[in-house]
Amino acid sequence: MTSMMKAAVKVKAAPKSTEVKSVAVSSICGTDVHIYDWDAWAQNRIKVPLVQGHEFSGHIERLGAEVTNLRKGEYVSAEGHIADGTCYMCRTGNAHVCKSVSIVGIDRDGAFAEYLKVPASNVIVNDPDLPPEFATMQDPLGNAVYTTTNANVPGKTVAIFGLGPIGLMAVALCRAMGARRVIAVGHRNQYRMNLAKTVGAHSVLRSGPRLVEEIMDLTSGEGVDEALEFSGSEEALKEALSVVRPAGGIHILGFYTKPVTFDLSEMVTKGVSMHGIHGRLMYKTWYQMGGLLRSGNVNLRPLLTHKFPLDRYDEAMAVMRSGDCGKVAFPMEA
Amino acid sequence: MTSMMKAAVKVKAAPKSTEVKSVAVSSICGTDVHIYDWDAWAQNRIKVPLVQGHEFSGHIERLGAEVTNLRKGEYVSAEGHIADGTCYMCRTGNAHVCKSVSIVGIDRDGAFAEYLKVPASNVIVNDPDLPPEFATMQDPLGNAVYTTTNANVPGKTVAIFGLGPIGLMAVALCRAMGARRVIAVGHRNQYRMNLAKTVGAHSVLRSGPRLVEEIMDLTSGEGVDEALEFSGSEEALKEALSVVRPAGGIHILGFYTKPVTFDLSEMVTKGVSMHGIHGRLMYKTWYQMGGLLRSGNVNLRPLLTHKFPLDRYDEAMAVMRSGDCGKVAFPMEA
Amino acid sequence: MTSMMKAAVKVKAAPKSTEVKSVAVSSICGTDVHIYDWDAWAQNRIKVPLVQGHEFSGHIERLGAEVTNLRKGEYVSAEGHIADGTCYMCRTGNAHVCKSVSIVGIDRDGAFAEYLKVPASNVIVNDPDLPPEFATMQDPLGNAVYTTTNANVPGKTVAIFGLGPIGLMAVALCRAMGARRVIAVGHRNQYRMNLAKTVGAHSVLRSGPRLVEEIMDLTSGEGVDEALEFSGSEEALKEALSVVRPAGGIHILGFYTKPVTFDLSEMVTKGVSMHGIHGRLMYKTWYQMGGLLRSGNVNLRPLLTHKFPLDRYDEAMAVMRSGDCGKVAFPMEA
Amino acid sequence: MTSMMKAAVKVKAAPKSTEVKSVAVSSICGTDVHIYDWDAWAQNRIKVPLVQGHEFSGHIERLGAEVTNLRKGEYVSAEGHIADGTCYMCRTGNAHVCKSVSIVGIDRDGAFAEYLKVPASNVIVNDPDLPPEFATMQDPLGNAVYTTTNANVPGKTVAIFGLGPIGLMAVALCRAMGARRVIAVGHRNQYRMNLAKTVGAHSVLRSGPRLVEEIMDLTSGEGVDEALEFSGSEEALKEALSVVRPAGGIHILGFYTKPVTFDLSEMVTKGVSMHGIHGRLMYKTWYQMGGLLRSGNVNLRPLLTHKFPLDRYDEAMAVMRSGDCGKVAFPMEA
Repeated sequence: MTSMMKAAVKVKAAPKSTEVKSVAVSSICGTDVHIYDWDAWAQNRIKVPLVQGHEFSGHIERLGAEVTNLRKGEYVSAEGHIADGTCYMCRTGNAHVCKSVSIVGIDRDGAFAEYLKVPASNVIVNDPDLPPEFATMQDPLGNAVYTTTNANVPGKTVAIFGLGPIGLMAVALCRAMGARRVIAVGHRNQYRMNLAKTVGAHSVLRSGPRLVEEIMDLTSGEGVDEALEFSGSEEALKEALSVVRPAGGIHILGFYTKPVTFDLSEMVTKGVSMHGIHGRLMYKTWYQMGGLLRSGNVNLRPLLTHKFPLDRYDEAMAVMRSGDCGKVAFPMEA
Repeated sequence: MTSMMKAAVKVKAAPKSTEVKSVAVSSICGTDVHIYDWDAWAQNRIKVPLVQGHEFSGHIERLGAEVTNLRKGEYVSAEGHIADGTCYMCRTGNAHVCKSVSIVGIDRDGAFAEYLKVPASNVIVNDPDLPPEFATMQDPLGNAVYTTTNANVPGKTVAIFGLGPIGLMAVALCRAMGARRVIAVGHRNQYRMNLAKTVGAHSVLRSGPRLVEEIMDLTSGEGVDEALEFSGSEEALKEALSVVRPAGGIHILGFYTKPVTFDLSEMVTKGVSMHGIHGRLMYKTWYQMGGLLRSGNVNLRPLLTHKFPLDRYDEAMAVMRSGDCGKVAFPMEA
Repeated sequence: MTSMMKAAVKVKAAPKSTEVKSVAVSSICGTDVHIYDWDAWAQNRIKVPLVQGHEFSGHIERLGAEVTNLRKGEYVSAEGHIADGTCYMCRTGNAHVCKSVSIVGIDRDGAFAEYLKVPASNVIVNDPDLPPEFATMQDPLGNAVYTTTNANVPGKTVAIFGLGPIGLMAVALCRAMGARRVIAVGHRNQYRMNLAKTVGAHSVLRSGPRLVEEIMDLTSGEGVDEALEFSGSEEALKEALSVVRPAGGIHILGFYTKPVTFDLSEMVTKGVSMHGIHGRLMYKTWYQMGGLLRSGNVNLRPLLTHKFPLDRYDEAMAVMRSGDCGKVAFPMEA
Repeated sequence: MTSMMKAAVKVKAAPKSTEVKSVAVSSICGTDVHIYDWDAWAQNRIKVPLVQGHEFSGHIERLGAEVTNLRKGEYVSAEGHIADGTCYMCRTGNAHVCKSVSIVGIDRDGAFAEYLKVPASNVIVNDPDLPPEFATMQDPLGNAVYTTTNANVPGKTVAIFGLGPIGLMAVALCRAMGARRVIAVGHRNQYRMNLAKTVGAHSVLRSGPRLVEEIMDLTSGEGVDEALEFSGSEEALKEALSVVRPAGGIHILGFYTKPVTFDLSEMVTKGVSMHGIHGRLMYKTWYQMGGLLRSGNVNLRPLLTHKFPLDRYDEAMAVMRSGDCGKVAFPMEA
């Protein structure tokens, strides 16, 4: 863990190849907390030393000789999934589930540093009007954009389970796209339930024995058209299945640490579909996201709740672990 | 034409069968102007005497004996396309293009009257919070909802050709669903170009020789993701084809009074699709519309520009023909 | 159970209303065996006396006065799900999951009889060239058509779990539509594994510990594009999830008698979707099915393995329970 | 034109870079005839000297140093559209309409030679069981696969306009995927109308004043579900629009040498969509095609009607121009 923390402080990454960026702002993903905590998953997956971090925005500092579509100084972020580009998945529009993926800040050095190196293919040029502290959020926002666009929410009633930063972003996105009614379902954390209200949830409810009845009451007994599951909780999954209407969809980004048990026949009899959502479509989701941000409809500002200089990394992680936060960012200039 | 006018004044429709509504508000469609003007299309299609009008909202006055899913007094509107329910189209989700359709206010008596009779299958129960003067707009709004949802606009750049009431509604809907940029293209009518701005168009341009270049400039040379064509003008269609990006879509509700000539190879080479949009999906579009209205994102209010009592029908038609209006409504109580 | 058997022998249903058919051929669904066995599900759902049976073909004997799109003597079958036609589901293309459905042969008298009464809305006019013993199979074949068309199989590698009659039909359908490779997965029943080969499976494997490796070998390590699950077995579901490629689909018609436990995170991480398939799309699936049968590509003949006169009902049920059969039919003339 | 012919004879392409193949078989596209004829399009587009040809199969002779996913000696073909990989289209699954595309045999040296150089990204490894003379056809077959899969033909009635090699391939593909009825529409060329029958068309008709009525008769007045237009004839386009059913689709690969004039309102009123089809999806279509070929359902053999050694190039072109042929191939060993 010590090496992890060290990795998190500034390490000047060698700017020797394809392209390099000076990181202006980075932000913390839940995955970073797992690495910081050095839990079972991290011990198994991470090879130290590692510079963590895959959420960032910055400017291009150096470009590989073969890169012709980008320019030094451009204001960019990047997709952190580096796909092989040659496999069946990559060649058929599914690079986001490439079997040979390498992930920035997990499998290779990441963004909690002054410089970062990523392939030109993964770079996204940001709208100059997008503030860097929102640009850094695009990695998780992309998860939320992929989930909500997969659910095609305009005019629909949507229940959102799990009010971590991505779930909260989904609330803001559903409102931005004209969902009929957005029902946010939290668990214990009142701070985040309040945030859900702030970014536009029509109703904020608490997971538990009365939830299904409450949602049925709110929807005249029809249930919701779409359920988005970000919590990784078996209980939430079951609630989602109970409240989704026949022929509706459940869109799951949540990660379940152990097998789940539920009544699959209920899903079949209702003609419901469950969609596993992983990463972001490369790069369709990024373009959709750029457009949604540009539309002005997405109320992200309340979700950036904390900023720290990178050398107060431990403090930032403590805030993340408390759960009483939205996104936590590291502006380099701070 | 005299008989038409007479048809437009109150005629007590016989309330003898399936169900009957007292009309609270009705509104004028462009088609009603064609009938009023008794043009070639009308002379060919309309059988007099006829009570015109297919846009309305009201309350159920009487119900047929077999109707069990509606209640007397309910606040309703109705889909005006009465499909046969038994043909290939009707049985496969395409009742909106049933070959044996009968249309309220065109093929049978309509809504410019105190009472109106429609089959229970076509009745839509309105949200009690939706004001009657917006509820009456749902027929044309449904056209716009079908067109914009067919184009799946969230995050996309959209050009809208033709700024009659439906085109203006499409502007408001694209904004409501988080389109990246909404470019409204008018022709001569400055009143409606101003309305486009009022309901949220990011840019309002004029059809003509400079249009394509202007749109390319606004879109960094990429063109628009989707073009919506409401004008029925060959010139607009060609402009739409020129400004839509490769693999984009053109969604056409406009009615062309004569054959059009254009470079179809341009469409093929760009891999563009053109979608003919007719009516509203029965009844998927109505549910989507109810949800979009309920979301609060749709800025419809500026589009209801005029109200007249039904006995000032000629005056209302004159406003419609001037083009200096949005929707023109007949509140029965006025 | 006695009353059930009695129900199964000829009962002259009162031909008093909408329309009536003389049944030419009917056939046995697995559901009929559950009713015959009077198991827990049947005891809970079925109200006796009941004429069972929902698979049939025959000719129209009598028509209700209001029915204008059908003619006496027409050769027909019928969709057994009688939907209410007025609910949210019915009005948005999802009548197959209407919440107020009434099912022929389960909730109302069915086809194991000389006459049967169904609403005109549910009647399907058969291709005169389609033999009655195939026409009666259209109910389960429709399940298989819905599942396989949902998976969009042309050119794809498909694994089919569960080789009851519907699974076997899916094998024939995948071949008929040009699937790259059809892998049929059985369990214990060698008779049905042989039938899978007869109707065109490229490979027939047995569920168990070596299955995943075998399928990976057959697919060069890629896995299958789509998995179809007809078995209702948790083991099969897990195998399906293991062998489906990233971004692939699992289409589930199987009924699970108890909750299932599996690694949902595997589904999420792979970006896989699971689709619950219930009934048949009303009536899109029926038209697709009619077209597929007409194409001549579907090899159904080997699946009709047994015929009995209706008074040898017990014998027919015994064959069904043995599992050593495909479809078992009751030709009325036999 | 002389230089063109010279280009067509063997020119040893410099095997200096990314990868090189020894061409085993190549085949002639209609585009090659345009180049050979040095028509207006060719004069405008082609820069001489040029080695023509973009349809081929062969073995990898040399690989660039950075290529790790291919091996020397592998049996391959290639997509001829070389996309830039960095533009909006390329990054959102639409590389087939990349604005900066460079096409093998048109914009750079092609396949009518012993060796050919293409980027590794564009190489497709062929099924070893696929004969080289079919593998070379995959470029045009890919056009037909994209068109037919876009139309989703299983169980549908399809009309195919234009019976050049791609139209004929579409006939075979529709049969392979279980289309209900395949109606092939030719013009003057009896040879190709006979070929349409050979590869499985249920009906072969001739374009002209009686066609619409004939197709309506064949389809019980419903029209066809999908029309595929390969002819580039305005007459055929109008016929397609007349015979397609409401809410059906017209899928157009044909190239129109001048603007077309037709009744666009008919398309709109019927709710029909027109899809421009260009190239092949990169590389989804190639994988679908590989699967369809592997299925064994596609009857391609009758379409390879002529083979010539490459030095009888003029003779081969003469056959192409006569129209009395399917595909014309150049086996290198011949």
